[in-house]
Amino acid sequence: MSGGDVGNRGYGRKTFTRSKSHFTDRITADGRDGWPVEAGRYRLVVSRACPWASRALVSRRLLGLENALSLAVADPIQDDRSWRFTLDADGRDPVLGIRFLSEAYDRRETDYPGGVSVPAIVDVPSGKLVTNDFQQITLDLATEWTALHRQGAPDLYPRALRDEIDEVMEDVYEDVNNGVYRAGFATDQEEYEAACAGVFQRLDLLTPRLARQRYLVGDTITEADIRLFTTLVRFDAVYHGHFKCNRWKLTENEVLWAYARDLFQTPGFGDTVDFDHIKRHYYQVHTGINPTGIVPLGPDPSGWLTPHHRQLLGGRPFGDGTPPGPVRAEEEVRPQGRP
Amino acid sequence: MSGGDVGNRGYGRKTFTRSKSHFTDRITADGRDGWPVEAGRYRLVVSRACPWASRALVSRRLLGLENALSLAVADPIQDDRSWRFTLDADGRDPVLGIRFLSEAYDRRETDYPGGVSVPAIVDVPSGKLVTNDFQQITLDLATEWTALHRQGAPDLYPRALRDEIDEVMEDVYEDVNNGVYRAGFATDQEEYEAACAGVFQRLDLLTPRLARQRYLVGDTITEADIRLFTTLVRFDAVYHGHFKCNRWKLTENEVLWAYARDLFQTPGFGDTVDFDHIKRHYYQVHTGINPTGIVPLGPDPSGWLTPHHRQLLGGRPFGDGTPPGPVRAEEEVRPQGRP
Repeated sequence: MSGGDVGNRGYGRKTFTRSKSHFTDRITADGRDGWPVEAGRYRLVVSRACPWASRALVSRRLLGLENALSLAVADPIQDDRSWRFTLDADGRDPVLGIRFLSEAYDRRETDYPGGVSVPAIVDVPSGKLVTNDFQQITLDLATEWTALHRQGAPDLYPRALRDEIDEVMEDVYEDVNNGVYRAGFATDQEEYEAACAGVFQRLDLLTPRLARQRYLVGDTITEADIRLFTTLVRFDAVYHGHFKCNRWKLTENEVLWAYARDLFQTPGFGDTVDFDHIKRHYYQVHTGINPTGIVPLGPDPSGWLTPHHRQLLGGRPFGDGTPPGPVRAEEEVRPQGRP
Repeated sequence: MSGGDVGNRGYGRKTFTRSKSHFTDRITADGRDGWPVEAGRYRLVVSRACPWASRALVSRRLLGLENALSLAVADPIQDDRSWRFTLDADGRDPVLGIRFLSEAYDRRETDYPGGVSVPAIVDVPSGKLVTNDFQQITLDLATEWTALHRQGAPDLYPRALRDEIDEVMEDVYEDVNNGVYRAGFATDQEEYEAACAGVFQRLDLLTPRLARQRYLVGDTITEADIRLFTTLVRFDAVYHGHFKCNRWKLTENEVLWAYARDLFQTPGFGDTVDFDHIKRHYYQVHTGINPTGIVPLGPDPSGWLTPHHRQLLGGRPFGDGTPPGPVRAEEEVRPQGRP
C-alpha cells in the first residue's frame, strides 16, 4: 500500500477509492503540531516503486534535504505485514531498528486498523510515525523546511503561483495520478472505461499546454511537475499494460514524452527512479490482476536518455537557483533499475 | 481453442505446447483422402479472433474462393463447449445447422477427447469435420483448389520459392506465431523471458530483410507474409499487453509497422480483421491471465490506415495477378471491429 490505503486491498472493493491519510500531523518551522523541523531528527520512508512516495524522493533531492532528512527505502515487494526493510542487512532499517514500517505505526497508535502506506515520516528518537499524508509532505518540504534547504534550492511552490499550481495538481490528481489506479483496479468494464478515458482526456488537455511551455506552471519546475512526472515515468512500464491505460504509450505522445524525458534528465528526477522496483512491485504484488506474477521484460527504457530539445522552449528549471549536486553513493539506484 | 488445442487449457500446463492437429485429412484436387475439391461442398469455420484461422480468411479472399468455400464465423467468446455459433440467428450456423463446432467433430469421431479448434473445414452434406490442420489448410487452398481460384488469383506458394518460404515460415512459426503464446501462457518468469526474448530476436532479424524488400520472399505476397501478418496485426492489440510481449510496440518499429500497414491496406488482408473480436476473445477468454475480463480501450487502431510508402521498395503484390474484389456484404466486418 502506498499513498493511502492501497495495494492488495484496493481492488477487492466495488469501486476503487483512495483512502485519506490517517496521520496528518505536520512537521513545521514553528512546530505547532509538536513536530518542529529539525536536522537529523526524522526519517523519510519510501518505496521507490510508489509514485506518491517518489514525489518526496524528488523534492528531497531538489531541495538538498539529504543531510537533514535521512532516507529508508522499503523492499518493493510487500508481504502480509506490508512494507518491510528486507533490502537492509538483517532485514532491519539501520536507523529505526524495525523490520516493518507498521512498527512505527504501532508506536504511534496501538492497533491502528488502516493500511500502512508510504511515504511516511518517522520521528527517530521515539520511533513513532509522524505523518503519512502524501498530499502534504512535499508541500511542507518545500515551504516549512526552508531553513534546511541547500544553497540554490528552487522554490517548488512559489506563493504567487499557488492557485494555478493547486488547480493543475487537483485535475492531475483526479484524472491521472489516481486515474490510472482507478483504471487498473476497476472490477467492471464500465468503471475501467470511465477511468481510462479520463486519463487520456486529461493528458490530451495537457499536451498543447506543454507544447507551448517547458513546465506546467510559470517557467520553472514546481510541485505540479513533480506530481505529473511520478506518474508519467511509470506510464509505459506499468500503467500501459498492467493497468490497461493503453490508448497510446507515452513514447507515442511527442510532447509529453519530451517533457517527461526533460525532467528525467534533470538532476533530482531520473536519479530517484528505479524501474526494477517499479516493475516488480506492480506486477508481483497485484496478483488480482496479474495472477502469474510474471514481470515483463519490456519496455526498453533506454529512450529516457535521448535528447529532448525542450531547452528551445526557454524556461529556467531552477529559477534563480541551481541544480542539486550528485546523488549520495549509498542512495544510488542499482544498475538493474536504471535505463 | 484455436490452431490446435489451445485456449483455456494452454496455461494449465507447466510449459505451453501447441497440440498437433488431430484431423489431418486433406482436401485435394485428386481427392485421394476421399475429399475432392468441389465448389459449394465445404464450409470453412473460423474465429476472426484467431490468428491461425485468420490465415485461411486472408487466403480465401486473395484467391477468390468465397463462392466455392462458404464461411462460418464463430463467436469470439467460447464457453465450456468451445467455439459456438451464437452470432447467428437462433445460435445455429445456418448451413450446418449446428450450435457448436464440436458437433461436427463428434460426427467425425465419437467421443474425440481433444480440443475443438479453428480453422476447421466441414463437409456440408455429411456435417463431418474434414480437417483442423491449421498448418496445411492454407497451403492446400493455394495449391489444390486452383481450379476454383478467381481469375487473377496470385500464386501464394510458388514452386520455385517453396524452400525459402518454408524456411522463413518455420522460424516465424516457432519464434513469433507461437512464441507470443508461449510468452503469454508462461507460468514462470524464466519460461516467459525465453519466449519473449525469442519473439523480439526474430522480429529484429526480420527487420533489415523487410527494410530492403517489400515482402518476405521474392517480390510478391506469399503464404509467408500471410502468416507473419496475422500475428503482427494482433501485436499491439493483444500480444503487447495481454501476453507481455512489450519490448516495443509494433508502431515503434518503423519497418515492421510499415510492412504490416502495407498488407493491412491490401485488399484481402485488413478487410478480414475484426479488432473487436480479437480483443474480446483474448481478454475475456483467458481469465487465467486477466481475471477481471476487462477489455482495454486501446490501442487506437486508426494508424493502420495511414500511408506506408512501401511502394517505393517496388514489388508486385499479386505478381502477374490482380487484387481481389470487394468483400461480400454479408462478410463485412462490423463497424466497431474496424480501425
